[in-house]
Amino acid sequence: MKAAIITIGDEILIGQIVDTNSAFIAKSLDRIGVEIHEMISISDNKQHILDTFAKFQNRVDLIIITGGLGPTKDDITKKTFCDYFEDELVVNDKVLQHVTQLIEGFYKRKITQINKDQALVPSKCTVLHNQVGTAPGMWMKKENTVFISLPGVPFEMKYLVENKIIPKIVTEYKRPYIVHKTILTYGIGESLLSETIENWENNLPEFVKFAYLPSLGSVRLRLSARGTDKDILEKSIEENVISLSKIIGDFIVGFDDDETLEAVLGRLLTQQNKTVSTAESCTGGKIAQVLTSVSGASNYFKGSVVSYATETKIAVLGISEDLIKEHSVVSAEVAKQMAIHVKEMMKTDYAIATTGNAGPSKGDSNAELGSVFIALATPNEVIIEEFNFGQPREKVVDRTVMKSLEMLRKEILKNVQ
Amino acid sequence: MKAAIITIGDEILIGQIVDTNSAFIAKSLDRIGVEIHEMISISDNKQHILDTFAKFQNRVDLIIITGGLGPTKDDITKKTFCDYFEDELVVNDKVLQHVTQLIEGFYKRKITQINKDQALVPSKCTVLHNQVGTAPGMWMKKENTVFISLPGVPFEMKYLVENKIIPKIVTEYKRPYIVHKTILTYGIGESLLSETIENWENNLPEFVKFAYLPSLGSVRLRLSARGTDKDILEKSIEENVISLSKIIGDFIVGFDDDETLEAVLGRLLTQQNKTVSTAESCTGGKIAQVLTSVSGASNYFKGSVVSYATETKIAVLGISEDLIKEHSVVSAEVAKQMAIHVKEMMKTDYAIATTGNAGPSKGDSNAELGSVFIALATPNEVIIEEFNFGQPREKVVDRTVMKSLEMLRKEILKNVQ
Repeated sequence: MKAAIITIGDEILIGQIVDTNSAFIAKSLDRIGVEIHEMISISDNKQHILDTFAKFQNRVDLIIITGGLGPTKDDITKKTFCDYFEDELVVNDKVLQHVTQLIEGFYKRKITQINKDQALVPSKCTVLHNQVGTAPGMWMKKENTVFISLPGVPFEMKYLVENKIIPKIVTEYKRPYIVHKTILTYGIGESLLSETIENWENNLPEFVKFAYLPSLGSVRLRLSARGTDKDILEKSIEENVISLSKIIGDFIVGFDDDETLEAVLGRLLTQQNKTVSTAESCTGGKIAQVLTSVSGASNYFKGSVVSYATETKIAVLGISEDLIKEHSVVSAEVAKQMAIHVKEMMKTDYAIATTGNAGPSKGDSNAELGSVFIALATPNEVIIEEFNFGQPREKVVDRTVMKSLEMLRKEILKNVQ
Repeated sequence: MKAAIITIGDEILIGQIVDTNSAFIAKSLDRIGVEIHEMISISDNKQHILDTFAKFQNRVDLIIITGGLGPTKDDITKKTFCDYFEDELVVNDKVLQHVTQLIEGFYKRKITQINKDQALVPSKCTVLHNQVGTAPGMWMKKENTVFISLPGVPFEMKYLVENKIIPKIVTEYKRPYIVHKTILTYGIGESLLSETIENWENNLPEFVKFAYLPSLGSVRLRLSARGTDKDILEKSIEENVISLSKIIGDFIVGFDDDETLEAVLGRLLTQQNKTVSTAESCTGGKIAQVLTSVSGASNYFKGSVVSYATETKIAVLGISEDLIKEHSVVSAEVAKQMAIHVKEMMKTDYAIATTGNAGPSKGDSNAELGSVFIALATPNEVIIEEFNFGQPREKVVDRTVMKSLEMLRKEILKNVQ
């Protein structure tokens, strides 16, 4: 079963917003064995939309279209659907009732004509009821291809994909088996990794595809097997992951598809019944934010002091002014004291502290742009590392966040063994 | 001048990573008047790549391809280029020298064959030297279409677009004028906005396109004018923005293309010479992180106490345990005390405090999922607002962050007037 994803909207084509919907839809379809043939973004132009529909007609089984369903004048998807299917818009009573309830009952506003028009749908379509917004999803079939239109607002699109589309496809269509396994590695670059595992890679069976996905400080490896016999696929993936782990086990952080360092850390801290706090200068609260993006973080994360200004380091964290004067605010000594003080304030087992110069201009120190100190206070000692993450600012912050989580993970593992 | 953007990589098609490169390239091209005809993502499959090249051949002037240039086995873009252009790979000495210097000089590793292969390029191509990575960009022309291949690593791609491609296009090609203006609004929904400005929208000239880009709590409006006479375009956009401001001025936060609430706030605080701190519970440091994402934030942001755990609210922020017991940790009273205490600790003019239940599970309180209190301490008073942002967790956090920044902005403006 093959699918295409079409995103409609000038805002995508001029680069004003990043299309995150397509990735979500692709991932959801991929999990149930639907292969994505293409993703395409086109403008709010009727002819271009019609041409794109025609291009995929009978070449794919499923076309998912997002965008252009809002209440405003630049939204033309519904009219274009009517053209393509030689259909007309009619009021759907159930949708009208829902829209009215949402606007008048929840938002406490009087319903207007523009709101009511949200209930207009092509007469031949199957409505996918959108409980979390006003624009309904639509499911229509022409010859061998199903066309599904969804609103572009991400949480409405997600609601419809998860609650309406995936269940409908799973019930109504037969699909091949597809097995993915992702391996998250930290601390080894793509080239070196590739050479280290070259033989292993050459010995992978034909039906297993292998890919490298590098990002800041980490490389995700992905094995994908596709076929008809689920057991064979799963067994092959499992065996190959085991043999890969023997070669690069030290660099492997986790295995889940959506695995993140912060989720791995969260599980480790929970298992070990340990807590952590942070004192952040150059990272501005991002370590705290990343740690708390994991649901259940309140079990191990106590809090953070974001001491962005030097006076906050002194007044709130209690760092000595003389120490700062002597060593500069970006120094191993200040990082160390920040970690010690916040660990004590928050009564945690571990504490991470960061101080550095993220750039682009220099702050209260003469440290080089990109220069960062990370201190990790453990139950027994304080480990301090110095880095230069270069520029730009976002990269310095993100690498500091990832590096500090990696340091914490290594340290916890050491105490487990 | 028309362009297409092609992203190559299975990781995009299975939804494992979101394609952010295309938006960056689109925005860069749009600014110099190059229209993006389509963006398309396809798999690491030679035939699919060749078909896509053929589809755009002579239909667009420019094709920009990202991905598939890495050193590993799944990277096939260069070989496919050779097929399409009937060319062969040759070693480029300048690239080889750069790769050698980068690996041996900077990374202090011995250069390997895989590294050396990065210097192989099609013999007919113009090399776009990549100073920040090992994979060079390539520029080739066939009939009326220029093909440009770039590495998929975002900061390498950005370097080549900004430093090599845009300057080359600007020098070598004639383009039409294009003028965009973005208007960032807060506090009014898309439907109501659309009705309020319906007459204004109907009176826009033919050559001006208008779009609504809603996101959490805000709607961006975009005017785009395209034509040959720059003065006419600019004048028309300016006049229409002025007349729009007369209708919805109260909701307009800013005008720049990349305008954000945090940047607007940063300028306001700097102009007024005021400072801010935050005490964050449910937002977990994200307000601090958003504020410090603006370069120069150290002028007005002193720091934050992320008091994720109840005991941190007591021990670090000094909130009375009795108060928490009496009112619950998610309450107006606790939010108020958090704001007062952090304002005092950090000696700032303003302080924002958040406490709420972001979900999905309940924390140290029985507050409803999505229930949030935001307190804003100003020089004269503390304003407290209660919200229910529903679910999921990320939406609760993001809406709390945006709402609190909006409250702060309104308050500062009040004191300015």
